[in-house]
Formats: sequence, structure tokens, C-alpha cells
Amino acid sequence: MVANKGFQEIDYRTANTAKIAIGVLGYGFMGKVHSNAYLKIPYTYKTPAAFPELVAMGGRTEEKVEDTARRFGYLGYYTDWRSLIENPRIQVFDNCAGENMHYEPSVAAVEQGKHLICEKPLAMSADEAKKMLDAAERSGVKHMCMFNYRFIPAVRLARDLLERRALGTIYQFRARYLQQQGHSPDEVVENIWYAKKTRTGVLGGIGCHVIDLARFLVGEISAVSGIVKTFHSKRKTKVGDEQDIDADEGNVALIEFENGAIGTLESSGVSTGRKNHNTWEINGSKGSLLFDLEDLNHLQVYLEEGPLKETWGFSNVSVTEPFHPFQTLILPRGHNAGWEYGHVHGLHHFINCVVNDLPVAPYGATFEDGYKAQVVVEAIKLSSKMGKRVGIKSISNAS
Amino acid sequence: MVANKGFQEIDYRTANTAKIAIGVLGYGFMGKVHSNAYLKIPYTYKTPAAFPELVAMGGRTEEKVEDTARRFGYLGYYTDWRSLIENPRIQVFDNCAGENMHYEPSVAAVEQGKHLICEKPLAMSADEAKKMLDAAERSGVKHMCMFNYRFIPAVRLARDLLERRALGTIYQFRARYLQQQGHSPDEVVENIWYAKKTRTGVLGGIGCHVIDLARFLVGEISAVSGIVKTFHSKRKTKVGDEQDIDADEGNVALIEFENGAIGTLESSGVSTGRKNHNTWEINGSKGSLLFDLEDLNHLQVYLEEGPLKETWGFSNVSVTEPFHPFQTLILPRGHNAGWEYGHVHGLHHFINCVVNDLPVAPYGATFEDGYKAQVVVEAIKLSSKMGKRVGIKSISNAS
Amino acid sequence: MVANKGFQEIDYRTANTAKIAIGVLGYGFMGKVHSNAYLKIPYTYKTPAAFPELVAMGGRTEEKVEDTARRFGYLGYYTDWRSLIENPRIQVFDNCAGENMHYEPSVAAVEQGKHLICEKPLAMSADEAKKMLDAAERSGVKHMCMFNYRFIPAVRLARDLLERRALGTIYQFRARYLQQQGHSPDEVVENIWYAKKTRTGVLGGIGCHVIDLARFLVGEISAVSGIVKTFHSKRKTKVGDEQDIDADEGNVALIEFENGAIGTLESSGVSTGRKNHNTWEINGSKGSLLFDLEDLNHLQVYLEEGPLKETWGFSNVSVTEPFHPFQTLILPRGHNAGWEYGHVHGLHHFINCVVNDLPVAPYGATFEDGYKAQVVVEAIKLSSKMGKRVGIKSISNAS
Amino acid sequence: MVANKGFQEIDYRTANTAKIAIGVLGYGFMGKVHSNAYLKIPYTYKTPAAFPELVAMGGRTEEKVEDTARRFGYLGYYTDWRSLIENPRIQVFDNCAGENMHYEPSVAAVEQGKHLICEKPLAMSADEAKKMLDAAERSGVKHMCMFNYRFIPAVRLARDLLERRALGTIYQFRARYLQQQGHSPDEVVENIWYAKKTRTGVLGGIGCHVIDLARFLVGEISAVSGIVKTFHSKRKTKVGDEQDIDADEGNVALIEFENGAIGTLESSGVSTGRKNHNTWEINGSKGSLLFDLEDLNHLQVYLEEGPLKETWGFSNVSVTEPFHPFQTLILPRGHNAGWEYGHVHGLHHFINCVVNDLPVAPYGATFEDGYKAQVVVEAIKLSSKMGKRVGIKSISNAS
Repeated sequence: MVANKGFQEIDYRTANTAKIAIGVLGYGFMGKVHSNAYLKIPYTYKTPAAFPELVAMGGRTEEKVEDTARRFGYLGYYTDWRSLIENPRIQVFDNCAGENMHYEPSVAAVEQGKHLICEKPLAMSADEAKKMLDAAERSGVKHMCMFNYRFIPAVRLARDLLERRALGTIYQFRARYLQQQGHSPDEVVENIWYAKKTRTGVLGGIGCHVIDLARFLVGEISAVSGIVKTFHSKRKTKVGDEQDIDADEGNVALIEFENGAIGTLESSGVSTGRKNHNTWEINGSKGSLLFDLEDLNHLQVYLEEGPLKETWGFSNVSVTEPFHPFQTLILPRGHNAGWEYGHVHGLHHFINCVVNDLPVAPYGATFEDGYKAQVVVEAIKLSSKMGKRVGIKSISNAS
Repeated sequence: MVANKGFQEIDYRTANTAKIAIGVLGYGFMGKVHSNAYLKIPYTYKTPAAFPELVAMGGRTEEKVEDTARRFGYLGYYTDWRSLIENPRIQVFDNCAGENMHYEPSVAAVEQGKHLICEKPLAMSADEAKKMLDAAERSGVKHMCMFNYRFIPAVRLARDLLERRALGTIYQFRARYLQQQGHSPDEVVENIWYAKKTRTGVLGGIGCHVIDLARFLVGEISAVSGIVKTFHSKRKTKVGDEQDIDADEGNVALIEFENGAIGTLESSGVSTGRKNHNTWEINGSKGSLLFDLEDLNHLQVYLEEGPLKETWGFSNVSVTEPFHPFQTLILPRGHNAGWEYGHVHGLHHFINCVVNDLPVAPYGATFEDGYKAQVVVEAIKLSSKMGKRVGIKSISNAS
Repeated sequence: MVANKGFQEIDYRTANTAKIAIGVLGYGFMGKVHSNAYLKIPYTYKTPAAFPELVAMGGRTEEKVEDTARRFGYLGYYTDWRSLIENPRIQVFDNCAGENMHYEPSVAAVEQGKHLICEKPLAMSADEAKKMLDAAERSGVKHMCMFNYRFIPAVRLARDLLERRALGTIYQFRARYLQQQGHSPDEVVENIWYAKKTRTGVLGGIGCHVIDLARFLVGEISAVSGIVKTFHSKRKTKVGDEQDIDADEGNVALIEFENGAIGTLESSGVSTGRKNHNTWEINGSKGSLLFDLEDLNHLQVYLEEGPLKETWGFSNVSVTEPFHPFQTLILPRGHNAGWEYGHVHGLHHFINCVVNDLPVAPYGATFEDGYKAQVVVEAIKLSSKMGKRVGIKSISNAS
Repeated sequence: MVANKGFQEIDYRTANTAKIAIGVLGYGFMGKVHSNAYLKIPYTYKTPAAFPELVAMGGRTEEKVEDTARRFGYLGYYTDWRSLIENPRIQVFDNCAGENMHYEPSVAAVEQGKHLICEKPLAMSADEAKKMLDAAERSGVKHMCMFNYRFIPAVRLARDLLERRALGTIYQFRARYLQQQGHSPDEVVENIWYAKKTRTGVLGGIGCHVIDLARFLVGEISAVSGIVKTFHSKRKTKVGDEQDIDADEGNVALIEFENGAIGTLESSGVSTGRKNHNTWEINGSKGSLLFDLEDLNHLQVYLEEGPLKETWGFSNVSVTEPFHPFQTLILPRGHNAGWEYGHVHGLHHFINCVVNDLPVAPYGATFEDGYKAQVVVEAIKLSSKMGKRVGIKSISNAS
């Protein structure tokens, strides 16, 4: 250490703030996004629940996992997931692998007593998801399915307003999540995430987000009717072969809630021009809310309140004030937070639950929420196949 | 006539432009909107197909029909509709009465050989609508169901782009028409148009608009799944009685098109904060279109064309240029047209068809289109009742 | 008259509503827009102040004035303006000619005792405008300079909120009016309204609108600093000649108000992509307002009031409710009015003032307002030339 | 280290990527934002120019600097800035202190041979800024004034389009930066950043941003006319004393560019409802650009190009595609970046210039740009005082 007079070295063993040791499986998109979030936790909150220690990242390809782990300052890495979850120092196992790698490592980690975060969708099927839930519940660890949009400040403000009954009786919900990766018939399989056999299609991959938001904001879904559609049943690969596509490329569903509200859900991978268009609207007897992920720092709020009814309209709220959810140290009023903050706030929530033994629900999605989203996914598929309305209880009882 | 030197009196019998004699049934909202449109036709177009002559308005309450007719400069009025349609001078009978008064007067007018415009929804049922269509077809008159939104310049531009295949293969359509009249459980029946027994609920009243737009823009609908909902099955009247409400207050539907596209339709009368929110989106393999009736002078167009792909995005097109549809004499570039122009352009289209013996379809909606919209309405209701997908052909064959 | 049994002819001599006889000079854009407005008055308002009688239109080219007058149903026309204003039947003379034809006919009309409407800008110079004001005041007639944007419902709502002091102390105002006619250096003179020698450039032609709005909404202007710019000092004509351009093509100004507020004004004819972009913003100690003419049915209102400060934001108000200014018979909630309604409401305001002997000010702009706008125009030009701030009083005293 | 079989420890001494040692003065808002940016550099770019080493943070209050440094993982801290800049290991000195602490430490650091980043505004006066520029130039170090908005991807795309002359001749620029901290007369001095005596008011504090953007996007400013205004010359402190306010609270200016374009600049601290409203618009002969910081992932682009002129309009470009500026590893298409990325990209740009000996200009702002912004600030103030246009050269020669 080259230093000089006046230099005060920081002793990182002496902080008042607790530490929490993290192991992350996966160096891809989600592995990076979670790692970024962990690094930001200490300086995002005035009093973070704990400082994450990035102990190890796991991934099969050594060159890539080493490179990624180094960029984020991990102590080390693993090329097999079993060793990662067996590291005794790790307190939280964060499964950022693809959904085909959620089930086995997550169940194994739970058996090691690790607290557990798993990316969405929770599993390849409702059945797998149920087993993961059961395993986690049996072991008594904290568990969270990473539905990051619950932790966007504007979404949480919506939830707060709904909890306070500011909107009265809820009549309607409509949500969609539209992307465009596969819009061209000439696009090759490798460039289309949802077309891969290790994934669960558009409905599984992003449809689950709007299903979770429906449940988070409005309540339990009682029945669905759906259409699940593959527009291009064959696509070329990069080398020019033709490959069959089983995955859905777009889907629409009608939903009925236990509380009597109705609505629509949609997700798509072929909506040309729609980059990451995740919007929803709620109409209640006393007000309405609108949200658009591509304008994520704002919530549109219509309330029939206030002294001047001539001025009632959808209020474009910049959800960045000190009195809004998830106030941060580094972003003052009107300084927009990026998409990545859903993960920052979500992972901090989980750490707080672990450190202070608090329940992950209802603000975080547990494995139960992850499982319930899978059930709705399967109900939509079943409805599409059978051409009739499917009750959610009939499906979930069966699994 | 007090005039002076230099005054040149205009002899209205000598114009080069043809005249066309109009009789309008109904002095309510639609009667006024149509009358306004007729008055505007001579000065909206450089070369109008004809100058409308407002011969007579019909309506039951003499004081009101006389007052309204006088405001618009009608020659006279009737208090019974039979006399109106029997007036030999009238060439076009325009039925602006409520939907419970569409069937009988329209069929009678056709039998008098009148060309016929009828407001939407065409009838109280698909069955009635089919009889009206058959009667009109038998007589050989021109007939149009007044789906005014086909004639909004931005909507017509959309149709033009679709006809030119600018969007490639169409994958998806989503449309909704949301209003808020009934959002409060305390609102009385008299203030809620859709709750009246002479109307056909939200689905019949405004849902038909989005059904027609789906057909106009994307193509024939092959199947639907729907939920039709009455949120308040009882409401107070002004005098405090309680009244049962049969009409739907909101509905959602999945649609499948014959060309393979899928989508959702929704209409609502209880969407708090939504004043007249009629929007739709079309996604195709090469581009997408968005429209919002509360911003009716614009069409959002995404096309993957143009020299700089860095600048691709939804283009916010002000559909007010000389090279856009329905150019007018009085509104230069960027000077916004109001909602009323859907009727101006629509009624002028019909007059042009009558005067020059042109087909009303495909740009205007004929009674066949009005009938087909009714069939879809009934299919959605049937689907809601049965909890399963309903094929459109199965219904239309039956009627 | 071919009629039949039951036909009740309307006797237009017997209406309870007063009539008012109108003469319009000019068959161009404004002549048409005013004529349209007069026709709409009887059926726009529940109780119109009077039914306009379109007695005569004046214009130099017989073929054109006859054609236009016929389209709007005028009784007759004149090809010289002196005869028009001498018609004893005409009560209101409405000068819709170009600004080079405002002074002489308007003064002459006043001398005939006609009530007087004159399009903006009131004259070719502040000096001419002052003489028009003096003449009108001497004769005791009603006079209005047609600043139509005062009569857009959203603008009037803004004025109402400001009158009620809902925004507290006003700090700032910023307004601009941007168009694009001359953006291409290759555009010929004939296609650019502001480049014509009979006009007063961009500042005179549309800059006067934002000046009037500044005065209408915030108050008297005390000083200005300006830049007035001609980007293309030579342009081709259609036949290929080169013509010198004196008119400004764009201008910017700083303004100071007597009440201490500051701001900017801008108008342009070379703002590529801006079709008719007239926006303004007001910031006060307790709230702010935003308006955009291309979204003219909405006013954005920010007020720090209402029960939930988490939901404060700019409220997007659809100014179409029954409790908003200028409620009409034919446009229910959310059914957008077009740009033409500024003239409808403005001309009805004037007619009401004439019929009921009410003051045109403060909601309508009188010739005094027209004159004051001209003074500010000239102050901006003088400031640009001299490179220094110009006090308004120093100019207006001089004229 | 508690690890296990399979654990591969990362040796951070062996990376291929260069390291660069950073010292940051200031633990406040900017100290945090810069530290966050340094942490993100290694994983934001596929091939970062270097991995920053956070050697030391400097700040007067030990408790606070220690706490902040610990959150970001600094090796240590200093409580006096002289020791910080004398640390021989530090290669880059990053001055994030308030503007009253820019001059002396920056000049001293340059004399130590440190490469130098200094937050905006560069100094308390143009004179100070010139001395800082001269010192940096003499020493031959790299220097950058942290105008972060140059590094927002949408802003850089704008610059790219302008460099390629896609907009033709530039006519007009208009920019404003509006905030609301001081809008209430009752707000106390301590809560209003711009009112503090250690700051340079609204014009100095945020006005410099729009000045720099004007220069970055359009070119050198030749003259200004300005109004600089303090609306509340006295304010209460928290303890109830009354304090004189010298700082401006809002300002407006006309600008003329050397290339003939004109425009307006504005900044405000009293614009109620405006959270962080930094927008600008450029109009050129062939196109226009619009930007709004509260929607920072989009650039609105109007170009009169492309195959279908019916579809021309402002294109709402999501500047998040792989072919857009500043592509990152962790944010795919449509996943919005936050405000903080201006600093991430800006600091990485500087590090790249240091490591690879590249010029900071023209994409980064050098101290020359910082100085020139100060000159314009002073010219606006002088113009306001004298009531006349001020040429920039007359000022800059004088300093």
C-alpha cells in the first residue's frame, strides 16, 4: 500500500453494519444484474440491513465465470453449482441461472440451509415449483422469487395506495408485456431468448411478470381463458438449419379475480417497435392507476379527490420524493432511477428479511407466489388448448 | 331584404353542385352531431359530392324537435317517424334514434326507397340487424351503419398503410374503449346511458366500435372468448327507487382473426378517469400502429424503414397534411380537427356513394358490417355465459 | 316545397332567440373559419345570445367570394368592401382580410356605427392599431381583436385558476409558437405565408398570439429584449426569380411583467417538424400550468393541494366536463373539440357583448389589447436592432 | 477465508485489464455519484479501459467521510485535501467538492501531476476557471469538467446526428433546466441548495448545464442577453433568522451562435412542479431533435427522410439498442438506464483518455469548456445588469 501522511485506512472487519455472505449461480444477464444490485446496497440506503459480501459466483464456463466474478469483485468462483451451495460461508444462495437450472440447485441449497433467492419463472413447471416451495418451507429458510417489478418505487406506491383503499372497489386490471425479439420471420433461433428449449416461452418468461403484478396489486386470480400462439413454428438457426419452435410467441388471457374484478393479461415477443413495454392499468370505483415500465419513475394516479374538481385528471407523479417508497441516498427528486433498481430494492428487502427475521411476503414474492404464477401460466395454456375457461383452484389442487 | 348598391344576392337554385335531401330521425346527441356534419360538408371539401338540404328532422316531443331543427336550419320537422320517411322529397333517411328505434323505421324507410344511414349499434340484436341488411339489399338502396371512427383521418391512414402491406403479416391487435359514467356505485340510472333498458349495455353501445375497428383494420374475426360483467346489479333512480341492472358495465374478450392474428377487445363504462379512451394497437412483422381517440389527430407509426436505424421509433404523425386522408378546406397543417369530423367525413362518403353510385364498402361500414358487429357482440355474450370459445361462423349461420 | 302530411314547416321569423346580422370581409382561411363559427353558434350553446345571420361576405375576386359565400349560406356578397360596410342591415362587421386590409375598412366600418371584429394582428403597425382603437372608442361600438386562443376551454380554465389565485405569486411564463413552412431554403415565397409583403412576418403573424396570451394570463409586460431573425434573406419565387425577404422567420424575446414575473416568448416559421406548436407554461409559488395547442382539450395542472402529497404531479385535465368553461351541446365528456372552437366561443362572446351590451374585456381582446400586442411586437424589433432592453411604456407613449 | 473444494479464489493482482487509482474529494451528492460510477465501470463495458481503484476519499468531517468511503469500498480516507492530492499512488484526482472548493485543490493537484476531473461549475468565477485551465494546460495532465449530460446516450446520439449533418443548417436551440426547491416563499435557506453562499446561484449551478449543452450540440455562443432574478431577496433560516439572498433564483437568456443560430436558455429553482426538468430542442433545415432529462432513454428525432412521407413525425427513439452510443453489458434493449449513467459513461471516457492518451475533447468537456461556460454565465449576469446584449468575446478577452 502506497500511502502517505494523513491516510486513514479503513478496516472492513470493524463496521457496525452486519455483513451477509452471498453466492450467485449464473454469470449471464441476471447474474450481472443481481451482482450490481448487491454492490449498490451499502450506498443506496441510509441504513442498509447488511453489507453484502460477494463470496462466490458459479457457472459452467470457467473463463466466463472468472471474468464476470472479477468485474464485480467476488472473492472467487465455482464451475459446479454443488460446490457453490456447499460453501459453508455462504448464507444466501441466489439462483440466477436459466429456469431449467432452478429446480435442482434450489432444492439442494435449501437442504444446505441456505436462504434462497430464485429468479423468475420459479421453475419449468408448476409441479417443480411446488416441490421447491415445499422444500423451502420444510427447511424454514427465507425464500424469494425475484419478481423485481414489485420493487419499482412507482409500483410499490401503487400497492400502498391500494392497501389504503384509495381506489375503492377494484373493477378492472389490464396488463401487457410486449417485446419484439422475434418479430421478423427471418430472425434466427439463437437471437430469440424465448424460442430456446431451456426456456418456457414468452408466457413463461415474461408473462409471469404480469401475472405476478396482477396478484400483487389486485388479488388472487380465480379463473382464466387464454390463447397461446406460436406464429412461426419453424425458424432458421445461424448455420441455416430449420428448427421447430414449440414455445409460444405471444399470448392473451382474460382473468377473473376472487374479489370480482376482471381483466386481461398479454405478453408477446413479436410486437414490432415495443422494446420493453410493460404497462398496466387498474380501475377502481374511486380512482385509477397507470404504469409504464419504459417511464418507470412515474405513476399516473387519478383520484376524485382534492379541492378543485376542474383540475382532476391523471396526475403524472414523479415517484422520486423523500416521502415515496425506497428513498435512496444518491438520487434526489426528479433524478431518474434506472430499471436496475427493481433488483436493488428487491434484494435489499430479502437481506433485511434474513438479517432481521422478517417475513418476505407480502411485499416480496415468496416461492408460494412463484408457484402460483406458474399455476396461472399452466391454466392459460390449458385454456388455450381446451377452448374454455379454467378455474385456478382446479389446477392448483391437482398439482 | 335590406341591401344596398353592390349587393349580389346568391341564388341557391343555380349552384353547379348537386343537392341531396336529408331527413334525420332523432334530435338527441347523434341527431345533433349528424346535422352539424351535414352543415359542414359544403365548406369542408374543395369539391363536395353534393350540398345536403336539411329537409326535416323527426322526433316525438314537438317542442324539442322544433327547437333542435331550428338551430340547424331544417325546413321543417315531424313528430312521427312514418310521415318523415314518407316525405317524397327526402332521398336519404338518417336514423339517429336510439337502437331500440333502429329496426322498424329503417326497414320502413328502405321500403320507401330511401337511401339509409343508421347509427350504431345497428339493432337490438343480430337477428334484427340481419333483417335490416336483407331489406336494404333487396331494395337496392345504399346503406351505411355509422361507424364514425373509420373516418377519423388517422384511422384511415392506418387502413391505407395496412392495405399497402406496410406492416407485413399482422400478429396482434388490442383495442379498448373505456368510459367512466357508472364508476360510482351511487350514480343513478338516469345518468348512465348504458344502464337504460332501451340500450344494449356497454358492449352493445361502445364495444361495437372496437369490434368494427378490428374488422376494418385487421380482418374477419373467427372466434371469441369473453367475459361480460355487471358490477352493480342494482342502482338507485333519481327518485330513490332501486332498479335492477341487466346491462353489462364492462367486458373483455379474446379474439382470433381468420388471418391468424390474435388480440383483445375491451369496453367499459366504469373506468374511473377514462373520459373517452378509445385506443388500439396493431403489431405486424414489419411495423406497428397506435391510435388514441383522445389524441385523434395523431397516428403513431413504427416502421423498420428509413436510412438511419438509430432513429427508428414510433413516429408521432400529425395526420393533418395535404397528402393525408380527408384533407379539408379550413384546417391547415397542425390545426387539430375535433371528434366531430368522423361524422363529417363519414356522411360525406355516403352522400358521395349515393350521388355517384359508388359502393359504400369497404371504407364505409354497410349494414353487413353492422350486422357482423352484432354477431360478435352476441358471440362474446354467449362465450361469457358458457365459459368457452365461440366460433363466429357457428353464430352467424344460426341467425 | 314538396312535403306531406305531418310536415311542420319552421318559420324562421318567429324564433324567440335574437338574430344578429353579420358581414364578413375576406373569403380566405379566416373568412371561412369565422363563417363556420357563426353557423355553429345556434347549436353549440344551450341558450345562444343570438342566431347569426350571414348577410354578406366581401372579397375582390367575384368568382371566389361567390363560391365561398354560397358554401356557408350567405344571402349575398360584395366585391368592394365599402359597399359591404355601408349595408344598413349589417350590425357586425368582421374583418377577416389580411393585415394590410385591416386599417382602412375597420375605421370606415366604425364610422358607419358597425360593431367590429378584426382578425389579428390588428394592423400593420402600432400606430395604425392605435388609430383603430381611438376610432372605435370614439364611436362607442363594441370592438374585438380576434385572439382566438383566449377562447380555447383549457386556456380559459387557466385564466379562471389564475384569477382565483390558485397558483399564488407568478414567477415565470414561457411561450412559443413554432411552425415549419419556411424550413427548407428551397421553399418558394408563394408557399410561405410570413414571407409575403402584405404580412408582418412571423413575429407579427403568430408572435402576436403568444404576446396576447402572456398579457391575458400573466399581466402587462413592462420590458422586452429581443432577437428578430431572417435566416434566408433571398428566396426563389415559383417562376424562378429571386426575391429579397424582409420578414423575420424566427424571433426570441425575454419579457418582464409589471408584476415581477419574467419569461420568454418565441415564434418561428422554420422549426422543422413543428406543425402548429403553440405551448406555454406558467410557474407560480403554489402551482404551475402547461398547455399545448396540439393537445388543446387538455390543461396540465400542478397544484400542491389535495389529501395525498404522494400523488401530486401534473394533472392531465380533459377540459370537456360540464363544469368546465364553454360547455357545448354536442360534445360530451372526452369528445375532443377541434381548433375551430376558439373562434366559435370567441365570436359568440362578442355577439353576447353586442346583444346584451356587455364589456368585451377582459375575456375577449379589445382593440386596446390588439394595439398593446402591436406595441410589444415593435418593442421586440427595436430591441433586436438596438441590442438593448426596451421598456414598453417608452414605446407606447411615443405612438 | 472459509471456502471449500472447488472454490477458485480470484487474484486481483493478475487481471489483464489495467487499473487506475482514484482519489475523490467530497462525500456529498457528487462524491457518492462519482464513486458509484467508478464501481460500475468494470461491469458496464465489455472492455473497460481500466478498472478504477478507489484509493481514498477526502472530506472534512471524519465520521462522514469514513462512513461514505466504507460504503463504496475505498481503501482509506483523508480529512484534509492536501494530503489526498499528495498521495503518490493516486493517478486521478476527482474534485467533487462544492464549487467554492474547486479552485485551490484543483490547481494544487495539477501541480502534483494528477489527472484531474472537476465537477461543474468549474469555479466560482470565470477568472478562477481560467487559472485552473491554464494550470492544467501547463502541466500537461488530462482534465475534464464533469458535464455529465454530454454522456447520456440520447444526448450523444444527438451529437452524432449533428456531426453527420443530418439536420442540415441549424436555426434554433432552446433549452431549460427547471427545478422547484425554492418555489415556496416559506422555504428556509438550508433546504435550497442554490441560495447558499458557497454556491453560485441557479445560473451557476444548473444554468451551466444548458450552456454547455448549447455549445456541445450547436457551437460557440457569440452573444447573450439575459435577465437574472432573485424573487425572494430575504428568506428565513431554520432557526427563524432572516437572511439576505444574493443568488439568482431564475434566469432567462437569448443566445446567438457564431454559426448564425439563435435560441433561448433558462434555468430556475422556483418552477413549482418541475422536479428535474432539463429539456432542449434543436431545429435545423432538415430535421429537429428533442430531449427531456426526465425521459432520458429517449430522443425525439424528426427527419424528412424515409420512404413514406405520410408517416413522418417525431420518432420516439429508445436509445438502448446495441447500435446506439454507450452500449452496456447489463441493460438490454428497452431496459432503461438511470440518470447516474451520465457519470458512468463520462468517468469511463476520462479514464480511457488517461490510459490511452486520447484527447478528452470534443466528447468530454475540458477545463476550457468549463471556463467557457463560466464566461457565458458572467455575460448573462452582465447583460442583466446593463440591460443590453453582451458579446462573449468582449468578456472572455477581458478575463
